Amino acid sequence: MTENYTLRDIPIGIDACGTRVETDSMGQIEVPANHYWGAQTQRSLVHFSIGRDVMPIELCRAYGIVKKAAAQVNAADGRLPQWKADAIIKAADEIATGQLDSEFPLFVWQTGSGTQTNMNVNEVIANRAIQLLGGRIGSKKPVHPNDDVNMGQSSNDSFPTTMHVVSLLEIENTLIPQVESLTDIIRKKANKWKSIVKIGRTHLQDAVPLTVWQEWSGWAQQLEDSMDALKAARSGLAQLAAGGTAVGTGLNAPAGFGKAIADQIATLTNKPFVTAPNKFAALGGLDAMVRASAGLRGIAVTLMKIANDMRWLGSGPRCGLGELHLPENEPGSSIMPGKVNPTQCEAMVMIATQVMGNDTTVAFAGAQGNFELNVMRPVIISNVLHAIRILADGCRNFRVFSVEGTILNEERIARYVEESVMLVTALSPAIGYDKASAIAHRAMENNETLRKAAIESGVDEEIFDKYVNPLKMAGHSLAGA
Amino acid sequence: MTENYTLRDIPIGIDACGTRVETDSMGQIEVPANHYWGAQTQRSLVHFSIGRDVMPIELCRAYGIVKKAAAQVNAADGRLPQWKADAIIKAADEIATGQLDSEFPLFVWQTGSGTQTNMNVNEVIANRAIQLLGGRIGSKKPVHPNDDVNMGQSSNDSFPTTMHVVSLLEIENTLIPQVESLTDIIRKKANKWKSIVKIGRTHLQDAVPLTVWQEWSGWAQQLEDSMDALKAARSGLAQLAAGGTAVGTGLNAPAGFGKAIADQIATLTNKPFVTAPNKFAALGGLDAMVRASAGLRGIAVTLMKIANDMRWLGSGPRCGLGELHLPENEPGSSIMPGKVNPTQCEAMVMIATQVMGNDTTVAFAGAQGNFELNVMRPVIISNVLHAIRILADGCRNFRVFSVEGTILNEERIARYVEESVMLVTALSPAIGYDKASAIAHRAMENNETLRKAAIESGVDEEIFDKYVNPLKMAGHSLAGA
Amino acid sequence: MTENYTLRDIPIGIDACGTRVETDSMGQIEVPANHYWGAQTQRSLVHFSIGRDVMPIELCRAYGIVKKAAAQVNAADGRLPQWKADAIIKAADEIATGQLDSEFPLFVWQTGSGTQTNMNVNEVIANRAIQLLGGRIGSKKPVHPNDDVNMGQSSNDSFPTTMHVVSLLEIENTLIPQVESLTDIIRKKANKWKSIVKIGRTHLQDAVPLTVWQEWSGWAQQLEDSMDALKAARSGLAQLAAGGTAVGTGLNAPAGFGKAIADQIATLTNKPFVTAPNKFAALGGLDAMVRASAGLRGIAVTLMKIANDMRWLGSGPRCGLGELHLPENEPGSSIMPGKVNPTQCEAMVMIATQVMGNDTTVAFAGAQGNFELNVMRPVIISNVLHAIRILADGCRNFRVFSVEGTILNEERIARYVEESVMLVTALSPAIGYDKASAIAHRAMENNETLRKAAIESGVDEEIFDKYVNPLKMAGHSLAGA
Amino acid sequence: MTENYTLRDIPIGIDACGTRVETDSMGQIEVPANHYWGAQTQRSLVHFSIGRDVMPIELCRAYGIVKKAAAQVNAADGRLPQWKADAIIKAADEIATGQLDSEFPLFVWQTGSGTQTNMNVNEVIANRAIQLLGGRIGSKKPVHPNDDVNMGQSSNDSFPTTMHVVSLLEIENTLIPQVESLTDIIRKKANKWKSIVKIGRTHLQDAVPLTVWQEWSGWAQQLEDSMDALKAARSGLAQLAAGGTAVGTGLNAPAGFGKAIADQIATLTNKPFVTAPNKFAALGGLDAMVRASAGLRGIAVTLMKIANDMRWLGSGPRCGLGELHLPENEPGSSIMPGKVNPTQCEAMVMIATQVMGNDTTVAFAGAQGNFELNVMRPVIISNVLHAIRILADGCRNFRVFSVEGTILNEERIARYVEESVMLVTALSPAIGYDKASAIAHRAMENNETLRKAAIESGVDEEIFDKYVNPLKMAGHSLAGA
Repeated sequence: MTENYTLRDIPIGIDACGTRVETDSMGQIEVPANHYWGAQTQRSLVHFSIGRDVMPIELCRAYGIVKKAAAQVNAADGRLPQWKADAIIKAADEIATGQLDSEFPLFVWQTGSGTQTNMNVNEVIANRAIQLLGGRIGSKKPVHPNDDVNMGQSSNDSFPTTMHVVSLLEIENTLIPQVESLTDIIRKKANKWKSIVKIGRTHLQDAVPLTVWQEWSGWAQQLEDSMDALKAARSGLAQLAAGGTAVGTGLNAPAGFGKAIADQIATLTNKPFVTAPNKFAALGGLDAMVRASAGLRGIAVTLMKIANDMRWLGSGPRCGLGELHLPENEPGSSIMPGKVNPTQCEAMVMIATQVMGNDTTVAFAGAQGNFELNVMRPVIISNVLHAIRILADGCRNFRVFSVEGTILNEERIARYVEESVMLVTALSPAIGYDKASAIAHRAMENNETLRKAAIESGVDEEIFDKYVNPLKMAGHSLAGA
Repeated sequence: MTENYTLRDIPIGIDACGTRVETDSMGQIEVPANHYWGAQTQRSLVHFSIGRDVMPIELCRAYGIVKKAAAQVNAADGRLPQWKADAIIKAADEIATGQLDSEFPLFVWQTGSGTQTNMNVNEVIANRAIQLLGGRIGSKKPVHPNDDVNMGQSSNDSFPTTMHVVSLLEIENTLIPQVESLTDIIRKKANKWKSIVKIGRTHLQDAVPLTVWQEWSGWAQQLEDSMDALKAARSGLAQLAAGGTAVGTGLNAPAGFGKAIADQIATLTNKPFVTAPNKFAALGGLDAMVRASAGLRGIAVTLMKIANDMRWLGSGPRCGLGELHLPENEPGSSIMPGKVNPTQCEAMVMIATQVMGNDTTVAFAGAQGNFELNVMRPVIISNVLHAIRILADGCRNFRVFSVEGTILNEERIARYVEESVMLVTALSPAIGYDKASAIAHRAMENNETLRKAAIESGVDEEIFDKYVNPLKMAGHSLAGA
Repeated sequence: MTENYTLRDIPIGIDACGTRVETDSMGQIEVPANHYWGAQTQRSLVHFSIGRDVMPIELCRAYGIVKKAAAQVNAADGRLPQWKADAIIKAADEIATGQLDSEFPLFVWQTGSGTQTNMNVNEVIANRAIQLLGGRIGSKKPVHPNDDVNMGQSSNDSFPTTMHVVSLLEIENTLIPQVESLTDIIRKKANKWKSIVKIGRTHLQDAVPLTVWQEWSGWAQQLEDSMDALKAARSGLAQLAAGGTAVGTGLNAPAGFGKAIADQIATLTNKPFVTAPNKFAALGGLDAMVRASAGLRGIAVTLMKIANDMRWLGSGPRCGLGELHLPENEPGSSIMPGKVNPTQCEAMVMIATQVMGNDTTVAFAGAQGNFELNVMRPVIISNVLHAIRILADGCRNFRVFSVEGTILNEERIARYVEESVMLVTALSPAIGYDKASAIAHRAMENNETLRKAAIESGVDEEIFDKYVNPLKMAGHSLAGA
Repeated sequence: MTENYTLRDIPIGIDACGTRVETDSMGQIEVPANHYWGAQTQRSLVHFSIGRDVMPIELCRAYGIVKKAAAQVNAADGRLPQWKADAIIKAADEIATGQLDSEFPLFVWQTGSGTQTNMNVNEVIANRAIQLLGGRIGSKKPVHPNDDVNMGQSSNDSFPTTMHVVSLLEIENTLIPQVESLTDIIRKKANKWKSIVKIGRTHLQDAVPLTVWQEWSGWAQQLEDSMDALKAARSGLAQLAAGGTAVGTGLNAPAGFGKAIADQIATLTNKPFVTAPNKFAALGGLDAMVRASAGLRGIAVTLMKIANDMRWLGSGPRCGLGELHLPENEPGSSIMPGKVNPTQCEAMVMIATQVMGNDTTVAFAGAQGNFELNVMRPVIISNVLHAIRILADGCRNFRVFSVEGTILNEERIARYVEESVMLVTALSPAIGYDKASAIAHRAMENNETLRKAAIESGVDEEIFDKYVNPLKMAGHSLAGA
């Protein structure tokens, strides 16, 4: 292996048309001449042309980080000449930054280990590095996709490593900020309405009053708690399988490789990645992914409640609850003129059901590991990244186009409080549950106000006014009594 | 409404750049000048830029059929001038045949009624028809997206109509043929191996023998039964909501519209579509879609069993069951040279888990209707069409790249039959269960052949040979005794 | 085998205390002396004491039918002496009629084939038959649990046979009548309210009017369609695995046994049971059970919609929609006096979510077959029978305690119709969508009635009154236009 | 309210037959005279006789703790006379310790708030306290179920409080110890087999070797990680809703009640319970339960992998993998003599699918809250406690009856290692991936040993023996390279 190679400054792109011949252990195959991928990618394209689900590009980009880290570690240890590592690193960087996105055409429905995507990455890096070093694309010289780019790695450890890396990055960088922004706006609006008393509803039935602040604070709290739980799932994702190679033993990887590459990935991403303490668990199971998916589902469960509450409270305008005015973003009906619908809430509710279905797939797939490998990886990462993406975008649009512009119908809110008979509850400590109950029934039967029913049932006016004070009933606490 | 308009022969495409102004009941908005869509589509693009899930193009194309049928019915009844209907029909045909695919950019995560996609279709047809008639695109003259293209319709009935149309077409034209081809090849191969006796396995443990024919016939039967059940779900899909308009009453649609458009769609598609007998059920629920999804799941459940069996029987080559050789399509490992994996089976198993998760979403969403509308339509159709597509493609690739090329390891198969002690079962009627059991245990403990253990336990040789005959034990029936 | 045995008239029960020794191929074990079960049941009790889920008693009773049919077939063919068959049949009858319910203590979480429950049945029948014939309980003479009671059968075929028998019987006899009764009462009440016009709601927002009759008819239709789909699943259940014995080949069962026993079971139950055409599919898969479960889920999906609609329409009394008065069955709150809640609806909604979760388990388990056997049978039958039971009971109580007593709040219903602006839709054909839309917006902004807004916008009064006629808008059709 | 009452020492039980009259706000109703429950319990029995699912007794017992804590707090604050509190506390203790189990007959399918079970508890405590104080049972004097026993509480806060208490207790006291014991035995056995080299399997295909120690260590690690994740869910469960009363505001509860009762429950249970910081989230959502359910599902996912691995490794005896001998606990087949099956693994796999279905129900139900209350509580707690119970019992039996007695088939294990060609991977760094691949293919095609194929392909013998050393290939690490 001579070292006559110098890294050149060659722009991305192969100026060729038609096909070129690439080889792998199965033999030769023609690939499009203007693409970097090689034989194994091409075989996969032929054999796995299923549906339209391509491997999420975020995963492929994150693979750039992992390959870069591997090359750095291998070069530092002297296993890989620096000039070769530099070429690999440059190509890997181009992948990580999205400059080679068009080189990852493979489908989700491929080998369950993700080997074909790993080889796609290896092949693209090798050919791009060859190009950068002035070699002949497809020659595997001076950079070999397996021997050099995949050095110290197996798909079996590098694919789950990348799954963890991309999941953690997407959760932290894409999802959490959007959930936080949504939580912030909910809390901000809650605080604006501290003294607006509204009727509570339990079992969908009129109950005792609370403030709008309190109601909205509950939504914010639910979101925070769901985020906390999701964040707790990050510690599992932070553990990387790299160093396990084919079955967990680390065969063909040098001692210390696992720790070194995890450290390097941590440095490159500025996230607390560590090497997994047990590589057999890390390869045979994908339990940390299942747990992350449960965390995403938790967010979905909470969002479904919030979006449902909002659209119900905004129902009407004249024949519904009508406590909220949601922003009117678009005509609501192709047949009913002037109709406006809670469409952002509906999108959110649909997203929530999708995430719950995705999670079912992930859990089922996560339980299907056998021996040293779980071969349901592509379907798992595909569903998890899909969930992250639609939750994040959904939270953003729900916030911007619905929550931010939502206002109260204060007149309606006040009227409900006045009319409700459930304020009788406040009398219960004074006159007992059974008597209070009789008053409520009387008010409903006679279509009277609660006040009239109470006083005519013998409750002293002063007592009534002292106890039945909606704002006092609501109190000023989020933590209850 | 003058009739000076003539249908011209104008190729698809708008020769314009920048933006033009379109309007809807919300006011004006700029849209890309080189696209046909109008104000409501553009608003949706702004408000619902969530994820990467665009409305399945098959749905949009099928909408072309529905809009064509509506125009035909409206023209026949004299509600729509024929020249206008002709322009609408031509534009609708272009949609149905995929020539306007790039005009449907909307996302799945939109209004739950699908109104925005209905309006997308209405707007594209209107503007294309306007173009064909020499009008000014965006002017809504002489063809109005609501008054003309949507005539007699609401999103509330036309969207579920299109959901049913596209689902039935895709099941019949895309999925069933692929499942049938897979079933055929399985049956064909089964028949080739009528007299190859193999060991049966129950609880993963050695059991009594059967033939390879019998084993494979079971897979084919399961597929056939699953297809039958899916086919039974078509009768629900064949019932169309059109004619219900906004809430099921058919307001603003002329009497007879529902039946007429269903007849017309039946004619256009050559499928037995009829008008739904109760439009309130058809709009308020999406139960037929939930049932179709269950039918798809049934196929997935069966395929998972088959793909699992095949990869287990092909496990090895030296340390697994090794009864089957699956075709070697690609290198199996980036680190283990020469490794070949059952990748088509893995893809199929992943597809099955995906379909099961999709189905969870569909069922959950289907249960969330309220009053006169279920607003979970986009998520339901998206998951159903996705399931159809990956099942269909998966069956095709599984067949072509795995099942067709699978061969038997007859030597291994024969050896297992010889070695198994479970053939003792055949002796049971002759010597009783308890004694037969003792012989089996003895053979295992002494590591003896069954024959030796039996004879040394006092079984007459002739008796043994008469009863313990694997091919006879397997018999020649698929229906058992 | 002598024939000195006569069937005696001995009442059920063993007059003994302490334990007796029973044996199986594993050796001896002590069983409670006052119970009929034998060694294998006792072993299972020791090894599978998991949770509180005992095998559904309906399954055990149905096993009585299957064992009776087997004995009848075996006797008719002369394989089993008639006196012995008579004793087996009498014991099996006692099981089928619930007289031996206390003899089936085994848990669901046992062997996945259901072998232990099959042996439980075999042992109970054998010992009871021995008792009836004057033998010594536990002696296996003159009736042996395997050789006689299990003659021609394996757990592998008799357990799924019984699963199909009990599922079909329970669906037909327990569930369908309750769903039908519920459908009937809904339809009956719908018909009472043919001319009550109410406001429609789509996206939870006010829409155009319909009649209460129409709304309720939609619920009835959804239930009927769901029932039809469930009924379609019966054809799969009607196919019986019996005759397949251990792996599907029918080893040790006489030729014709499968057909004969299916015929006999059909006679005993008066249901159209037939022998499954392919026994390898019948043992290796449980797809018909998965399909039946999907049918149950379909009912649940529909019921969830209906129960949700009812509780929302009954929400209030003063701060909700308040269109319905649901019966008040119990105090609603331990703290809010006089509160009444839609508790039957809530029970139904919870039942629906349970059935959906059960179905997830069934589908997942159904996909986990391997080779000649699916060993997830107990969990599947347990979930299916549970779903049937709670759906049936739930429908009954929902009907009796809620739907039957539900009445309309006609005043409220009328007021909504008057107030709604969405009746503007009726003007759309006369004045165009865009102008109608402007009128609706104006009415909302100025808090005017629709009539005022329309007329002041230039609509002729006569035109208004001609078009905006709620009852006319609703029409008199269930099938829409 | 006089204070002439003294707590007497009266044994549990009511010496009466027939019925007595009890009353609630709905009026009078007859209840069985020999039971403590009152009117509301009786009404629920009538209206909610659905299925066989009674409210889990663990929940009712935990309610005893909550009611005791409430009485202690109320007495300490002087709201409840000490003599009355003492009677309530004594009755509550009897519930908590299981002495009144037969007094809780209510079904899961009841009001979604759990009010009826709260009232069941209130009524039983009240009548038992009345009895202890010498009053007339049913008189509500001197102890009233609402005014005294439910003092400061609503079902809306006390039921979710009890859900959290019982879930945390059951997870910590029932489930975790069993999972830990199972993990311990797996780790212990792993350590015994540190130097036993076995073949690895990825994609079910032969891969490079590892030790039995390493393989089993992976299972133990997966269990530990799953337990850690479950433990993380406890912090949510530790937050109690008490103090929120009807809608979260704490109406009718004295200031500080929430904190005081949480402290008291913490003291009584010795667990770190605290008052929830936001009572609107605590009542409107059940997100902490959904997260706990996800934790349970995580355990199930892991157990499914382990149980599957074990039964596959134990498959055979002669026609499977045969690496493990699982204990033989019972005859495996009613027809195949001497057959022994991996029944404990099967039970575990079924339990895992059940838990996954339960979790689907819980997530779906958890997403269905509206406004101030989620009324899916009974179905959620029922599924969560069910999952805990079967997981715990399943782990125990799986350990005792299967894992503990599992031994290795060392001869078979060694033979696989010898025969596998995948050891060629070790040569890869020396001779390159492509050449190693060719050697592997040659060995398979010629049915040669790897050694022969390598040497005849030109690999130096010494090189071969240096690299291809199974134990060295496996290494001595759990953390890989």
